[in-house]
Amino acid sequence: MKIELVNTGSELMLGRVLNTHQQWLCRRLADLGHVVTRQVAVADSANAIQNAVREALTRAELVITTGGLGPTSDDITRELIAELLCKKLVKNQAVQAHIENFFARRGRPQPAKTDVETFVPEGAEVFLNATGTAPGLAMRVEADGSKQAPPSAIIKPPSPRWLVMLPGPPRELRPMFDEFVMPLIRREFAGEIFICRTLLTTGIGESRVQEMVEADLQPLVRRGLEVGYCARPGAVDVRLVARGPAAERLAGEAEVVVQKKLGESIFGRDDAEMEQVVVALLAQKKKTLALAESCTGGLIASRLTDVPGASEVFLGGVVSYANAAKEKFLGVRSETLAAHGAVSEAVAREMALGARGKFGSDFAIAVTGIAGPAGGTPEKPVGTVFIALASAAGVKVNQFLNGWDRVTFKQVTATQALDWLRQTLSAVVVRSKAE
Amino acid sequence: MKIELVNTGSELMLGRVLNTHQQWLCRRLADLGHVVTRQVAVADSANAIQNAVREALTRAELVITTGGLGPTSDDITRELIAELLCKKLVKNQAVQAHIENFFARRGRPQPAKTDVETFVPEGAEVFLNATGTAPGLAMRVEADGSKQAPPSAIIKPPSPRWLVMLPGPPRELRPMFDEFVMPLIRREFAGEIFICRTLLTTGIGESRVQEMVEADLQPLVRRGLEVGYCARPGAVDVRLVARGPAAERLAGEAEVVVQKKLGESIFGRDDAEMEQVVVALLAQKKKTLALAESCTGGLIASRLTDVPGASEVFLGGVVSYANAAKEKFLGVRSETLAAHGAVSEAVAREMALGARGKFGSDFAIAVTGIAGPAGGTPEKPVGTVFIALASAAGVKVNQFLNGWDRVTFKQVTATQALDWLRQTLSAVVVRSKAE
Repeated sequence: MKIELVNTGSELMLGRVLNTHQQWLCRRLADLGHVVTRQVAVADSANAIQNAVREALTRAELVITTGGLGPTSDDITRELIAELLCKKLVKNQAVQAHIENFFARRGRPQPAKTDVETFVPEGAEVFLNATGTAPGLAMRVEADGSKQAPPSAIIKPPSPRWLVMLPGPPRELRPMFDEFVMPLIRREFAGEIFICRTLLTTGIGESRVQEMVEADLQPLVRRGLEVGYCARPGAVDVRLVARGPAAERLAGEAEVVVQKKLGESIFGRDDAEMEQVVVALLAQKKKTLALAESCTGGLIASRLTDVPGASEVFLGGVVSYANAAKEKFLGVRSETLAAHGAVSEAVAREMALGARGKFGSDFAIAVTGIAGPAGGTPEKPVGTVFIALASAAGVKVNQFLNGWDRVTFKQVTATQALDWLRQTLSAVVVRSKAE
Repeated sequence: MKIELVNTGSELMLGRVLNTHQQWLCRRLADLGHVVTRQVAVADSANAIQNAVREALTRAELVITTGGLGPTSDDITRELIAELLCKKLVKNQAVQAHIENFFARRGRPQPAKTDVETFVPEGAEVFLNATGTAPGLAMRVEADGSKQAPPSAIIKPPSPRWLVMLPGPPRELRPMFDEFVMPLIRREFAGEIFICRTLLTTGIGESRVQEMVEADLQPLVRRGLEVGYCARPGAVDVRLVARGPAAERLAGEAEVVVQKKLGESIFGRDDAEMEQVVVALLAQKKKTLALAESCTGGLIASRLTDVPGASEVFLGGVVSYANAAKEKFLGVRSETLAAHGAVSEAVAREMALGARGKFGSDFAIAVTGIAGPAGGTPEKPVGTVFIALASAAGVKVNQFLNGWDRVTFKQVTATQALDWLRQTLSAVVVRSKAE
């Protein structure tokens, strides 16, 4: 089965907005056993949208469009697709009631602009928008639909197709997909038996990761396993894809091989984020964490608090950007700052000990470094960072050189710090098992 | 002139990775006066890649591919495009020397896998990779190139085209584009006079924003102005596009209209982020800021410290997730916590006053709320948040209800908090001008 996505929006083609729909929809569809074969983005232009949808309908059994259903003047997808499929737009009373109710609950008058959202192509399935006003739409495109079509809009799909239109804002699209589109896909299309397992590694480069696993994976590749590698900031993903009745077994065998070869470097699988792994390990071990962040500026805390339930294990942190804050909140000594500078092993050590003591946590992580672009010296170039980890066993400091732009530097450093804690917590687990 | 992007990578189609190339490349090309007409993503499959590139070359004068140039087994773009254009791959000594040097400088042996990266299609321009190993490539595709092509690989562009291949990792692609591809585009293609100006607003919904400006923009639309609206978490962008010799004037007039109608709701233009605006205003007014974050969990601090130079104005913050941390670090009284709960106007007030006092800053922002998914009550549902702003003038608290998922809640709340400070700082500017 072929599935194509058509993302519409001039803001995409002008680079004003990041297209997050591609990843989100591809992930959801993979969970249903379907791999998207092509994704296309075009501007809010009549020709561009109609051409992209027409071409997609000639190739794919399911086409999903995003965007262009809203109330403003550049929202033209609904009208263009109705024209392409020779369908009239008709007023839908359920949508009208839904939009009236949406504004009534908020105590605001219904903007006149939203009236356009109540018109839908005749025959369309309508998805009421739980978090907004514009409804989503699904239309079955018959194989002989072209007979009624004017020459400018000829669509001759070789077999019936489904065309699904979703609104652009992610917080409208996502619940709507889960509520309405997933059941539609289950109803209309049988998913392939298809397993995609991703092992997430950190601390090793992409070439080296492949070198470490490929010889042992080779027999499984000959049996149909597909292997992919993807480098991200601070991480390399190893992707194992298997299809057909033996998929579960093949993927399972492959995972055992990769686990054996990469061991401790694997921090999680599939959708796991490092911060989720760390929060889960802390919860499992009933341990608490505090942070003292300088160069990461609150990013580690923010990543941890993205995880629901973080408040059970994360007591808090100090973002000690100024030296005075390092002294006042963490008890770093002014002599240490004067003798070694804020970016030093000694200061990292005192920050971690201070955070652990003041928050009363089991573990404390401290980071101090030079995010750049300014502030580097020959001895301590931009990218230099000291990470300290304090626990009941004492405090250790590691030095890294993370030479990227400021934002990537913060991400990579945060991942390193969290991974150190992960490895420490995992070792605790292993030891207590052995005892 | 037509430009198309072809992003390759099975990880994209499986939803394992967010495609950031589209936005970044579209933005850069718009800066050069070119709007990308189509962007396509396909898996690392020979047919999918060759079809996508072949089709793009029939439509566009410039085609840019990303990904598939690396050393691992799923990196196949270079070979497939050489085949499509009937070019042999030949060893390139400059690339060989570059890769040897890359590993020598890191004190690591050159992985055998990287040898494949030293082979380039004959006749290609080679872009040495400043931050990695795989070179970028540019090839001129002649209009009569099809004569030598085997039937399976027919390309009949109506006129000469350029095909540019860039590596997938953003930190390799981005400097390479700036160093090599921008000069190539300037050399080969004249950009249109083209102005895209985006005014960034916050605090008003998308429909309402359009209602407020559209009547006054109508005369300019008749003169060729294109207007677009885009809703993002906590913000709505108003995009003004003008082309041709009168573009600068038309865009300027449109901006005046929007400024007049939306006034204070506009927090910046074009690429500005709220945190950049706030850091710049603090620097301009020589004021300092401290934070006390509960439900945003360090996100406000992290956004501020993404801005180079933030250390000049941002003294630091406390992520006071646990109540004990609110007391110990910020001086929130235990009676206040007991009487009102951690999510309350009274606690927000004491957090802000405590942060301002302890950090000795001019301003302090405090946030306390319920990010969810758990923790809501009928009186204080998930999404409830109190934001306090303390300054020499005292402390004020505002209450909001930001009912989204946890991560969006954090983003919207952070934007609200920063925008309040922005408006306060802007008012200071206005008042001191009036004095």
